[in-house]
Amino acid sequence: MLSYSLSEKSKTPLYEQLYQLIRDDILEKRLEADSILPSKRSLAEHLSISVMTVENTYNQLLSEGYIYSKPRRGYFVSEVIEYPGTKQSMCIQPAKDTHKKKTETGISNEKMPAVYYADFTSNATDPASFPFATWAKIHRQILSEEQSKLMNNSPSNGIYELREAISDYLKAFRGIHVNPDNIIVGAGTETIYPLLIQLLGYDKLYGTEDPGYEKIYKTLISNGIKVEKIPIDEQGIIPSKLEEKGIDIVHITPSHHFPTGITMPVNRRYQLLNWAYDNDKHSNVRYIIEDDYDSEFRLTGLPIPSLLSTDKNERVIYMNTFSKSLASTIRISYMVLPNHLMKEYYERLSFYSCPVSTFEQLTLARFISEGYYEKHINRMRTSSKKKRDILLKTIKSGPLADLSEIREEQSGLHFLIKLNISKSDEELIQLCEEKRIKIAAVSPHSFMVNYSSIPLERIEKAVNTIASLIED
Amino acid sequence: MLSYSLSEKSKTPLYEQLYQLIRDDILEKRLEADSILPSKRSLAEHLSISVMTVENTYNQLLSEGYIYSKPRRGYFVSEVIEYPGTKQSMCIQPAKDTHKKKTETGISNEKMPAVYYADFTSNATDPASFPFATWAKIHRQILSEEQSKLMNNSPSNGIYELREAISDYLKAFRGIHVNPDNIIVGAGTETIYPLLIQLLGYDKLYGTEDPGYEKIYKTLISNGIKVEKIPIDEQGIIPSKLEEKGIDIVHITPSHHFPTGITMPVNRRYQLLNWAYDNDKHSNVRYIIEDDYDSEFRLTGLPIPSLLSTDKNERVIYMNTFSKSLASTIRISYMVLPNHLMKEYYERLSFYSCPVSTFEQLTLARFISEGYYEKHINRMRTSSKKKRDILLKTIKSGPLADLSEIREEQSGLHFLIKLNISKSDEELIQLCEEKRIKIAAVSPHSFMVNYSSIPLERIEKAVNTIASLIED
Repeated sequence: MLSYSLSEKSKTPLYEQLYQLIRDDILEKRLEADSILPSKRSLAEHLSISVMTVENTYNQLLSEGYIYSKPRRGYFVSEVIEYPGTKQSMCIQPAKDTHKKKTETGISNEKMPAVYYADFTSNATDPASFPFATWAKIHRQILSEEQSKLMNNSPSNGIYELREAISDYLKAFRGIHVNPDNIIVGAGTETIYPLLIQLLGYDKLYGTEDPGYEKIYKTLISNGIKVEKIPIDEQGIIPSKLEEKGIDIVHITPSHHFPTGITMPVNRRYQLLNWAYDNDKHSNVRYIIEDDYDSEFRLTGLPIPSLLSTDKNERVIYMNTFSKSLASTIRISYMVLPNHLMKEYYERLSFYSCPVSTFEQLTLARFISEGYYEKHINRMRTSSKKKRDILLKTIKSGPLADLSEIREEQSGLHFLIKLNISKSDEELIQLCEEKRIKIAAVSPHSFMVNYSSIPLERIEKAVNTIASLIED
Repeated sequence: MLSYSLSEKSKTPLYEQLYQLIRDDILEKRLEADSILPSKRSLAEHLSISVMTVENTYNQLLSEGYIYSKPRRGYFVSEVIEYPGTKQSMCIQPAKDTHKKKTETGISNEKMPAVYYADFTSNATDPASFPFATWAKIHRQILSEEQSKLMNNSPSNGIYELREAISDYLKAFRGIHVNPDNIIVGAGTETIYPLLIQLLGYDKLYGTEDPGYEKIYKTLISNGIKVEKIPIDEQGIIPSKLEEKGIDIVHITPSHHFPTGITMPVNRRYQLLNWAYDNDKHSNVRYIIEDDYDSEFRLTGLPIPSLLSTDKNERVIYMNTFSKSLASTIRISYMVLPNHLMKEYYERLSFYSCPVSTFEQLTLARFISEGYYEKHINRMRTSSKKKRDILLKTIKSGPLADLSEIREEQSGLHFLIKLNISKSDEELIQLCEEKRIKIAAVSPHSFMVNYSSIPLERIEKAVNTIASLIED
C-alpha cells in the first residue's frame, strides 16, 4: 500500500499534497507503469483521510493523464514517456525563470520614455485638449444605461450606432455621403490595412508616396506585400509613375500630404481618377486609397473636397481616424468601401471580430451624435490655430526669420520648415535633444513642425531655444 | 470683368458663393485657361464686397488648384482636364448617393439580430455577470487621476502596468512565470495572429486541430498562409500526423480542447514537445501555439499545468484572452513570446501601435492589480458551476437522461452532448430555432452546450423545451 505523510497544517489542501506525491512517484518510476492503484476506500483508510480526498486526487491525476481507469477494475498507473532533457517532472517545479531575467534578454521595454519639453515630431494629443469631463460623463451613462448592448458582440465592421454617427458626421462636415453599412470600424492602420490586403489580394502591387507616411510602407512590406515608393512633385503623387511601375493600388494623402503638407490640386485628382478608371491596358482593377487623416484640421478656408465624393466608378477607398481629432491613444479608425468590395467583405471577412470594444464604440457614437465631437473639433481647431499663429509669429519675428522658409502652413497639424543653417542636421537635432526638444529632419535641412502635442505656453520658448542653438 | 450676383441673405458665406461661381465657370470653360483674373481690389469694388472676401475666394481656388498665381503678375485660370464621364464639376454636387441606397447593394448589415431565449452556441458573456459598478468606478478613477498617462501613446506591446498585472496574475493563478516584457497585448485573435504570422514568416506550414476552433483556420487561410487540419484522438492532436504532414507550427488548446472539451494528458504533451524539439530532420524551427482561452474555468480540481511552464527550449507561444473571463466585447487578449522571438518582435514589428486604447488598458491593469479580477473570476466560476449543475441535473433527471451522453463536462464553459434521436440534426436545430433556442451540431448528433451567455433562470426551461422537441 502507498504510504505518504500528509500534513493537515499545510496551506496546500490534502488532496493536492497526495496528488503531488503520487504524481512524483509515477514520474520517477517508483510506481510501475500499468500497476493497479489501491481502491479509493482502502487508500483513504490506510492514510486516515476521507474517501472524498482520495477521489479528488485520483480525478486530478486522471484528468492530467498520470493514471487511467478501467470500468469495474480500478485505477492504473500510466506509462509516462521521458521528458526531453530531464527525468524530473516539469509540473511541480516552480515555473522556470528564463523569461524573467531582464538583463539576460536585453529586450526590456520598460525604460522610461524621454520626457521632452517640446516634441515637434509626436502626433500625440495634448492632454489639455481632451474632453475628459464629457467623455467620463458619456461613458458613465453608457455603463448604466446600455448594459446589455455592451455585452452584445459587435458586428465585425462595428456597431451600427457608431457607423451611423460617422456617416452623419461625414455628410455634415465633410460633404461625403456614405451608407453606414459601407463603413468598417477598426483600431488604427494596424487592423484596417490587414483587412484591406486580405480583401484586395496578396498579388497586388501597392504604391506609397515618397516621401510619405513610412508606417504604411512598413505595414505593407511586413504583410508580405510588394510595394513601390512613388515620387511626389509639388502637386502630390505623379500618375505617370504609377503607370510606369505597374501599380495596382496607391495610398495617398490628398487633402494634406504627409509630411510636406501639399494639398493635391483638382487636375492631379482627375488625373489619378483617370489612372484608376483606365482598365484597358492592365489586368488588375486599380484602387486609390484616400487617407484623410487630418482633414478636420484645415485651419483656413473651406474643407478640400474628398476624392471619394469625386469618384464615380467605385475606385476610391476612404480611410480616416479619430487619432488626430480625439486622441492618439483611443484606437478608433475606419474605412469606407465601395459596394462591390463591401459585399466581398461581408462574404469573406466578417468572421473576424471588430477589434474595438463595444464600451468605446458606444461612448464614441454618443459623443458624436450628441454634438460633442463637433464642439470638440471646433475647440481643437481654435487651439491649433492659436498654437500655429504663435509658432509662426515667433519664427517670423525672431532670429529665425532670415534663416527659415515655411511651407504649407495652411492646413493640418503640421508644416515643414526649411532651415538655412551651417550646422549639420544631426548636430542641431543633438543640441535640441540636450535641451529636451525633439525635432526630426524629413529631408536635408527640412524639419517637421508637428505641434499637436506641445502645450500652447511652451511654444515660444521652444522656438527661441532652437533659434539660439542655430545661431550658436 | 466677372459679374456675379451674390446674396447677403444666404446661409452660405459670400466668399464661398463667389468661390462656387468662379469654380463652375472654370470647370464649364466659360473662363478660358491661362486667362488672367481681375485683381482682388478691382473685383471687390466691382461686386461691392470687401477685398478680404475676394482674397478668401482666391485662396480657396488656389489651394484646390483651380487657379494659379504668378508673383507680381496676379492670378490665372488653370487648365482643368476633363473629368472622366462628365464635364460637370464633381465638387459642387451633393456627393453622389450610390453608397446610400441600401436596396441597391443588398448588403445591409443592419438587420436585427435574432433574439434567442437561450443560445447554446454563443461565447458572449451574460450581462448579469459583468462587474459594471467596479469597472465604472475604476474607469472614473483612471479618467481623473491618469490624464497624462491616458494621452501617452502605448508601447507597441501594451502599457507596462497591464503587462505587469498579467504577469502577476499568470504567476499567482496559473503558475506561469513570465517577464512582462515578453507579453504582447492585442485586441483578440484578429490582431494577435497577424503579428505572429509576420514574425514567424509567410512560408511556414501551420497545423490546426480538427475538429477545432474554425476561426483560427479561417484567419490563417485569409492571411495567405498554408494550413493543414490535423485530426485529434481522445488525447488531443496526434503528433505523428504533424510529422507526416510536415507541419512547422501547430495551434492547440491543450487545457480544454475546443469543441470537445478534452484535456491533453501529460504523455501527449511530452510527445508534442518532443516533436517541437526535434530539429534534425527538418529545416524550419517548430513552434507550438498554446491557446489557453478558458483555463480559468476549470470548475473542478487543480488548474491543468500549462505547456508553456513545461517547455524548456523556447518552443511554446502562449495565448490567452479576457473575452471569456471578463467580457467578449472588451477586446483585450495577449500572447507570451519566448525571448528570441520577442527580440525579433522589438526589432521588426514594434513600429505598430498597440490596438487597445490606453483607457481600457489602464482600467484593466488596475482592475487586475487591485484584486477585482480574481474576485470576479471566482464569482464567474461559482455562477458557471451553478449553471452547469442545473444543466446536468435537468438533463439527467428528465426525458433526455436516456437519450443523451455527456462528454467532458469537467472544465471550461462548454461541453458536448451526444443525442440519440430519430430526427435529423437539421430538423432539431430548426424546431429549436422556432422556440428561439439556438443549438449547433459539431459532428452528427453531437451538440455544443455553451452556457456562458444563458441566464441561470432560463436553463431548466431551455433544456426541457429541447427535450420535448426531441420526443415529439
